[in-house]
Amino acid sequence: MKRNILVIPGDGIGPEVTTWGKAVLEEIAKGFGHDFSYDEALMGHAAIEVTGNPLPDETLEKAQKSDAILFGAVGHAKYDNDPSLKVRPEQGLLKIRKELGLYANLRPILLFDELLNASSIKANILKGTDILFFRELTGDVYFGEKTRSEDKNTASDLMIYHRYEVERIAHKAFEAAMKRRKKLCSVDKANVLESSRLWRETVQNIAKQYPEVETTHMFIDNAAMQLIKDPKQFDVVLTANLFGDILTDEASQIAGSMGMLASASVGESTGFFEPIHGSAHDITGKNLANPLASILSVSLMLEIGFGLLEEAKVIIDAVDQVLKEGYRTGDIADETTKSDQILGTKEMGQLVLKYIAQHIKSN
Amino acid sequence: MKRNILVIPGDGIGPEVTTWGKAVLEEIAKGFGHDFSYDEALMGHAAIEVTGNPLPDETLEKAQKSDAILFGAVGHAKYDNDPSLKVRPEQGLLKIRKELGLYANLRPILLFDELLNASSIKANILKGTDILFFRELTGDVYFGEKTRSEDKNTASDLMIYHRYEVERIAHKAFEAAMKRRKKLCSVDKANVLESSRLWRETVQNIAKQYPEVETTHMFIDNAAMQLIKDPKQFDVVLTANLFGDILTDEASQIAGSMGMLASASVGESTGFFEPIHGSAHDITGKNLANPLASILSVSLMLEIGFGLLEEAKVIIDAVDQVLKEGYRTGDIADETTKSDQILGTKEMGQLVLKYIAQHIKSN
Ligand SMILES: [Mg+2]
Ligand SMILES: [Mg+2]
Repeated sequence: MKRNILVIPGDGIGPEVTTWGKAVLEEIAKGFGHDFSYDEALMGHAAIEVTGNPLPDETLEKAQKSDAILFGAVGHAKYDNDPSLKVRPEQGLLKIRKELGLYANLRPILLFDELLNASSIKANILKGTDILFFRELTGDVYFGEKTRSEDKNTASDLMIYHRYEVERIAHKAFEAAMKRRKKLCSVDKANVLESSRLWRETVQNIAKQYPEVETTHMFIDNAAMQLIKDPKQFDVVLTANLFGDILTDEASQIAGSMGMLASASVGESTGFFEPIHGSAHDITGKNLANPLASILSVSLMLEIGFGLLEEAKVIIDAVDQVLKEGYRTGDIADETTKSDQILGTKEMGQLVLKYIAQHIKSN
Repeated sequence: MKRNILVIPGDGIGPEVTTWGKAVLEEIAKGFGHDFSYDEALMGHAAIEVTGNPLPDETLEKAQKSDAILFGAVGHAKYDNDPSLKVRPEQGLLKIRKELGLYANLRPILLFDELLNASSIKANILKGTDILFFRELTGDVYFGEKTRSEDKNTASDLMIYHRYEVERIAHKAFEAAMKRRKKLCSVDKANVLESSRLWRETVQNIAKQYPEVETTHMFIDNAAMQLIKDPKQFDVVLTANLFGDILTDEASQIAGSMGMLASASVGESTGFFEPIHGSAHDITGKNLANPLASILSVSLMLEIGFGLLEEAKVIIDAVDQVLKEGYRTGDIADETTKSDQILGTKEMGQLVLKYIAQHIKSN
């Protein structure tokens, strides 16, 4: 397969972790005989320093021409305590999502057995959890009309959905479910909300095109509860912008460690793949960052972006093996970790590369 | 203190559990020298059978004249599988809330040490959790204007708040915080929603009248996460209708057992106190129902409705003692419970009464 990948390392630990994400792409390309080419571009503080713009035109052009984007993080300490700075790193991220028409945010919650104890949920409840959230990203009450009365005493936000907005993300979610355990749970509040009733009837209609997928519907309040009570019941979860915002944050706590979670934003064309952790400028350049979320972003790119399921699985298996053998970066180490098994960014990256090569050979 | 209490046993296990709630009220009145008088009224299926109306006028009149209402549950199996029945038990509950102007729903999440293992959250995370939720009940996107376009392809719900709606529930929440650990966390989505910005600025203004209360603000997505990560950080949580619907359901799972949770709806005048479990018609009349949620509803009535903190605490201490000594009803028993300590409704009710009497005497 021939693919053109744009790497946007960004700020803070972004470049360090993205280095290993890219190295994994190269290892996979070599092992499976793919033709991946790479370009690189600036975004965030790094771009402001050079061009004055958090998303330079050149970056956007390269993004639009690429088949997928591997992103690190944006952000820098100088902006944190100075709200007066009008040009800010995060603006680059918001703008590129909008320009690329990224209407669906994907968040896999994949729990590695070795890290189950990091969560506040009991390990026996969590073991085996593997959820893929599809959160609608460009509609809902976040983008509907906002009003404030003249006397300032009444305020409103319009929760609004159009059928096509639900249809396009529903198709993506059902397609993903077909490649997974063929279960899809759509979350809404159709017993109270008209926009949820449109959501539900649209999902019900699309479901007819995917008869192999077992489709269920759940109210958001119940879903927030079920996610803690029995997370294993979920495969693909499809939901609106606000409800998805709440559920994915709740689910990231289920997972215990932010350092292991990847995310994708997809839409009309180029997909955008990133770790959910931020720029973490306090540990930048110290070989302390956990590269596994960036590496798992690459697995997501292969699975969701390119449909390369086997390649994606090799990466997950390699990460699983590293963890099973007891290796950890500092952020996921605990009192049972042997001190010589606490690895730096580079050592962890190299170990994953080694196991990927072994897994490819033994297949 | 002289108070007139209306008991509405309702349907299913409602009468069985309410019997013990009322018995606890009588024991407290005797022990502390209060003058509580009682009346009783019909609601739900029980009322439909007699009058054809799930909320007879007589019940509403009695409710309006009373100082507090102790409610059981409504619901009957015959309605569950027959959506064609237009007159339904639940309508009584919705109507009485509206008629009494009950704009605030209170849900305490009080975890008894002995039951910590019932939750899917780890016991060490939960131990000591004691949260009181204030959920706004008559506004928000649930009651704003709903639209559906003529072509049926666009649907909307208006998320709307008026300042007075936020003020009145905020006052109640701050007053409760003053009697507790003096911490209040207001949950909103003010980084995105105009109605949340009104919510936040209103709460900030009211907070100035309660300088002793440590007030914080949290976004709903973070709150859904923090509730699992570290529930002990919360004392009073104040939030809007939709966000409260989600958080209180999530929190009930934290508690592990529905059989122990009570709820109150308060507003302009008479408060309404009830267990959150339903009518459970499958176990009705079998002496199997757990009366503790009704008994804890009475504790809530004394604390929130009448400001009788010491009396409320005696009830909680008695329930705590029963549990510490190993007694359980079937729904909260586990493999460590001795078979002769699994009690029926009546035996559990009597034991709590006995301990209440002892606690009053020893004080
Ligand atoms: Mg969020
Ligand atoms: Mg609910």
